[in-house]
Amino acid sequence: MAEPLIVEVTRGPVVESRHEVDLVVTDATGRIADAWGLPDRMVLARSALKPIQALPLITTGTAAATSIDTRELALACASHAGEPQHLAVVTAWLERQGRHPRQLECGAHRPLHVPAADDMVRSGLEPTALHNNCSGKHTGFLAVCGHEGLDPQGYIAADHPLQRDHVTPAIEDLCRASLTGLEPAVDGCGIPVWPITLLQLATGWGQLSRRGAGQEILAAMARHPDLVAGTGRSCTRLMERAAGDAVVKTGAEGVYCGVDMRSGQSFALKVRDGAARAAEATAAWVLDRWAAIEHAAPLQLTNWAGRPVGEVKIAHP
Amino acid sequence: MAEPLIVEVTRGPVVESRHEVDLVVTDATGRIADAWGLPDRMVLARSALKPIQALPLITTGTAAATSIDTRELALACASHAGEPQHLAVVTAWLERQGRHPRQLECGAHRPLHVPAADDMVRSGLEPTALHNNCSGKHTGFLAVCGHEGLDPQGYIAADHPLQRDHVTPAIEDLCRASLTGLEPAVDGCGIPVWPITLLQLATGWGQLSRRGAGQEILAAMARHPDLVAGTGRSCTRLMERAAGDAVVKTGAEGVYCGVDMRSGQSFALKVRDGAARAAEATAAWVLDRWAAIEHAAPLQLTNWAGRPVGEVKIAHP
Repeated sequence: MAEPLIVEVTRGPVVESRHEVDLVVTDATGRIADAWGLPDRMVLARSALKPIQALPLITTGTAAATSIDTRELALACASHAGEPQHLAVVTAWLERQGRHPRQLECGAHRPLHVPAADDMVRSGLEPTALHNNCSGKHTGFLAVCGHEGLDPQGYIAADHPLQRDHVTPAIEDLCRASLTGLEPAVDGCGIPVWPITLLQLATGWGQLSRRGAGQEILAAMARHPDLVAGTGRSCTRLMERAAGDAVVKTGAEGVYCGVDMRSGQSFALKVRDGAARAAEATAAWVLDRWAAIEHAAPLQLTNWAGRPVGEVKIAHP
Repeated sequence: MAEPLIVEVTRGPVVESRHEVDLVVTDATGRIADAWGLPDRMVLARSALKPIQALPLITTGTAAATSIDTRELALACASHAGEPQHLAVVTAWLERQGRHPRQLECGAHRPLHVPAADDMVRSGLEPTALHNNCSGKHTGFLAVCGHEGLDPQGYIAADHPLQRDHVTPAIEDLCRASLTGLEPAVDGCGIPVWPITLLQLATGWGQLSRRGAGQEILAAMARHPDLVAGTGRSCTRLMERAAGDAVVKTGAEGVYCGVDMRSGQSFALKVRDGAARAAEATAAWVLDRWAAIEHAAPLQLTNWAGRPVGEVKIAHP
């Protein structure tokens, strides 16, 4: 179908805003099972690619050689909220490598979890790279550099051996994409972000569930939903509700991916305008269709006085 | 033209997200001068209606009788950031009326200005209705109630005499809209929000510049851009740049309106998906076309390390 999926934002009797979503679902063989909009649309997968970018931790032998545990693997795939449990894992993992937070090249931002950010304000502390939602992924990058004997400096560049010989080939392999000759954009945390099609992205997620290394990554995410995002956030809530039946990961600008661990079906979606609320509503709707969660109700919107004023819902699937 | 205006969000060589904008520009006689998308699209004007909702302050004689100054008029039209200068005006105005912040029915949220919110966190203070971005509008509502001898309790309800006999008729008058029999939605601050067409909204803004009461409101906004929004925010920056040549006001879910004080042209726009970034880019672009500001450059996007990664720009006007 060429028509995108529509997510409506209502306010009282009115549809106030609407979002168009490209969504592709693949079956266990990687073929398209269902599609809305354009499966061949080029997208930047952003953080929805983290589980694939974490694969070199397994495939290089880094995880086995340095006793990386499931918490650390989950953090390597996380867009974490900077809560104490996230910082504890990243800090300890970095120390075990003999690395310093200064070596993380992701930049600093305050914790996404507001109470954690408030704690920093009260303590008079400035955010560091540890608080960046991508610090787990970057700590994983440093771990691979260490195991492979690579000078980590500049590890975020597309032509650094880490990206060139490990991370980018993992994307090409799982997503069945040829990235040679393409110009990458730059992600929020500084690493290259390659344009791939939505179908290639869904294919990559399906492949995760069919490879030993991918299964190890997905199992770690399923085991620690709270480490992949944080308190009250979409990925954490959906994976808690799915209780191991599905693994999901969102990305900036309205990307969301997931895989049904029982059937091997996978999905990838991109909201054309980049809105997270529409991506989250659609991901919940897909998991509901898979019966990986029970009844994904529309998101209720309330105003500042707590009065219900509208909702975010799938319009006409 | 039936085609909406397109705002593109780029990242490196890729258009990562795009927004569709309905935009109508009217001339000094209220006729359509230019349009993209659907001028007859029903919209909820949200805070872009505040200057019209403030009209009863003038037309009832409240402002003249109670010596309301231009700062207070600007705050009545504001979606303010909760900075000290905003709280000072609202607090003093409320006290002069003998009212208590508890009588504001807008609900509480932390200041939109992050340093102001941080100051509250450090002081251990909880946000009150004073910090709500709409507290100036609500203080104005209380002022009209006082002058008109209305019991203010429940003043946010559509059938309260304030809304029914003063605010809603002002909207109907300026926007040339008949709201009788329509069901309003509920705004973020609890007041009714009526569906009107984008053209009616642009018409209302044009009428503001052609009525004495409206001119008084617009002049107050033009004189105090910092009170209408706050440090670094779009309305404040655009009005500072326009230096009195244009008055603008944004609303939630991607609404933006404005008027050229020299020509009497007005505009109203709604981003279909509700994104503020697209509304702000388009408003700047309109003011640039009017030569009310100089060269509205695309908004530059940087990542957490400060590296430029993309931009927000009008695609093909």
